[in-house]
Amino acid sequence: MSNRVEILYCTQCRWLLRAAWMAQELLTTFDQEISELTLKPGTGGIFEVRVDDELVWSRKKEGRFPEITELKQRIRDRIAPGRSLGHADRKEN
Amino acid sequence: MSNRVEILYCTQCRWLLRAAWMAQELLTTFDQEISELTLKPGTGGIFEVRVDDELVWSRKKEGRFPEITELKQRIRDRIAPGRSLGHADRKEN
Repeated sequence: MSNRVEILYCTQCRWLLRAAWMAQELLTTFDQEISELTLKPGTGGIFEVRVDDELVWSRKKEGRFPEITELKQRIRDRIAPGRSLGHADRKEN
Repeated sequence: MSNRVEILYCTQCRWLLRAAWMAQELLTTFDQEISELTLKPGTGGIFEVRVDDELVWSRKKEGRFPEITELKQRIRDRIAPGRSLGHADRKEN
């Protein structure tokens, strides 16, 4: 089964709420594409998002959290390439 | 890896929000015990909660959604037997 999304978040930093918020955004936007979304508690400032075990966002690497639009675009590029995200796709001019 | 919780919910019935709410409640109460919690979109009125693939709640069987206290008690009985849930554990007299 593919199109599995995983969000690994730090419980010490209390990042469950933003991880769960992003989970709901992704499961709403990609309700036909995502087969399952797993929330995984971690520690030490971790915040990582994977699609079928491929890392699509790492807070350590990027130095920040993703904007939800960025995250949706990266996930769309892997599970629904070519699909428009509507106005969210238009670059700020 | 054990203590995996899964919530299978019906997207046609728009049950993502209550599934995600229960996920956050469980990941808050059992933040040390639950290794991962998976949200799984389904159809046809399904709402099921599993712990390590064992069914702990089925809307079809029970004919209703769980109260969050009931759900926490059933999950506690499997992943942290004997642990108190505080005031949530006291039966209404």
